[in-house]
Amino acid sequence: MIIPTLDDMLAAHERIKPHVHRTPVLTSSHVDGLAGAQLFFKCENLQKAGAFKARGASNAVFGLSDAEAARGVATHSSGNHGTCLSYAAGRRGIPCTVVMPRTAPQAKKDAVAGYGARVVECEPSVTSREATFAEVVAETGAEFVHPYNDPRVIAGQGTCAKEMIENVESLDAVIAPIGGGGMVSGTCLTLSNLAPNIKIYAAEPEQADDAARSFKAGHIIADDAPETVADGLRVPLKDLTWRFVKSHVTDILTVSEQEIVDAMKLIWKRMKIVVEPSSAVPLAAVLKNPDVFAQKRVGVILTGGNVDLDKLPWL
Amino acid sequence: MIIPTLDDMLAAHERIKPHVHRTPVLTSSHVDGLAGAQLFFKCENLQKAGAFKARGASNAVFGLSDAEAARGVATHSSGNHGTCLSYAAGRRGIPCTVVMPRTAPQAKKDAVAGYGARVVECEPSVTSREATFAEVVAETGAEFVHPYNDPRVIAGQGTCAKEMIENVESLDAVIAPIGGGGMVSGTCLTLSNLAPNIKIYAAEPEQADDAARSFKAGHIIADDAPETVADGLRVPLKDLTWRFVKSHVTDILTVSEQEIVDAMKLIWKRMKIVVEPSSAVPLAAVLKNPDVFAQKRVGVILTGGNVDLDKLPWL
Repeated sequence: MIIPTLDDMLAAHERIKPHVHRTPVLTSSHVDGLAGAQLFFKCENLQKAGAFKARGASNAVFGLSDAEAARGVATHSSGNHGTCLSYAAGRRGIPCTVVMPRTAPQAKKDAVAGYGARVVECEPSVTSREATFAEVVAETGAEFVHPYNDPRVIAGQGTCAKEMIENVESLDAVIAPIGGGGMVSGTCLTLSNLAPNIKIYAAEPEQADDAARSFKAGHIIADDAPETVADGLRVPLKDLTWRFVKSHVTDILTVSEQEIVDAMKLIWKRMKIVVEPSSAVPLAAVLKNPDVFAQKRVGVILTGGNVDLDKLPWL
Repeated sequence: MIIPTLDDMLAAHERIKPHVHRTPVLTSSHVDGLAGAQLFFKCENLQKAGAFKARGASNAVFGLSDAEAARGVATHSSGNHGTCLSYAAGRRGIPCTVVMPRTAPQAKKDAVAGYGARVVECEPSVTSREATFAEVVAETGAEFVHPYNDPRVIAGQGTCAKEMIENVESLDAVIAPIGGGGMVSGTCLTLSNLAPNIKIYAAEPEQADDAARSFKAGHIIADDAPETVADGLRVPLKDLTWRFVKSHVTDILTVSEQEIVDAMKLIWKRMKIVVEPSSAVPLAAVLKNPDVFAQKRVGVILTGGNVDLDKLPWL
């Protein structure tokens, strides 16, 4: 296991700068009033390809040697990582293959293909996905870029917290959603080195609370495809992300499906930005736990904005 | 008629700085590809109270003497100006009265009242509105702040173009939607003085094209409450705004209802921001007129983000 270091994160930031947005930090007096806290929203929904995963994917892709890059990259993902890896590979002009379940929404397949990657379908089971993916790698020699359990990806995601502390002074806490733990691990990497006084919280759907249960149990608990509207957060922790989470996270807070949808709609309505359900989980947790966040200055990471505008969860 | 000057605009910018956001300028490679141009979106949908009108309203409110301010402000509006005047008055802690037709959506009345103003209902006719408004002013002595035909308001709206040229170099053109012409007039005020080489375009719904017809005819043509999804653009030009429009605008381009809705959805989908239909009219015009904008660097003013999330025009 290779543990990414502060230097890896700093190098990642230089490497990806030409390929990602330095996203704005937005505030809302109205939402602050509801939370009883000062919230600073880091808008990764406004990131290239609509999600923070453009950071980690770009770091992995642009860190390859020319010889490695020539063979391309591959991953399995039905979410933002596939789209963002496709985006980064397209920027470098190298092949990219994304294995996706044939049952994934057509819009998601189109998004991946839209940035130039080849989509290879598998059956919606772990066995089929692993077999299909092994074939792709055997055939192409492509470099596997895991959605989160990869030091290059974690170092890339850590650049988001770096920008946040450069833009906002004296934060008391930062909160991010947790699924596989890539963003939270990157946040841990950055803040534990550069701003160790800032507390790190993770937020998770009650219906996919494997990270919260892992945190309490002291070892990884993995659920099999839990159901939640926050579809980016269905995946389990892995060894590398677990290492960061168990060492640096103060607490993992959980919220209901209704609380997620309400927070999502609140962000759209008052902040005028499009966020996907996963992005709203941290705000839902802040609103639910005023005892934890009252009067604090809190960085809230809005992780992505890829949502089907024809199927909004409150309609 | 008092014509606002460059100095008025510069003073407005200093005056309103503590009360409005310096909104970000966003870009989208995807939208640039569709337009064949480089577009810089000035995000007034992310402005306080969700619209650029917070600028003009704040300038009017904070420019009052203490004696004037004590009597409060008043306006008639069923749109963003009422909300924004209420916001600005609330910031100064002075009374605000907004006359609104009783038929206006409850959400709009709630938005105005939400920032602290008193809502007084009238019948949905010009006669009733004027009579009701006269009563309010007689009773309170409040200062009337017109939604757009007011030098203080135009000077305030002009601060948006100032920020845009400070943030984006070498623009060839700026385009904004036109209803009553407040934003376009402010843009004319600023650019004709500070960057006279930048062409100014206005964009308007075909179904409410009174400004375009005025522009061609050489005198104001006012329609009576035209119907369009871009509900912020139903009002006619008035003497002061007409003066700026006729002198400094290069052209007024019109677009269909479907083109407005398509451009609105494109902005939501690719840029991950919530804009109201009026805001999408300029992008629709840019996409419709590649001959005018090809290869150009174009500032696009997104005017507001106040929309009913339960009633989206593409659903």
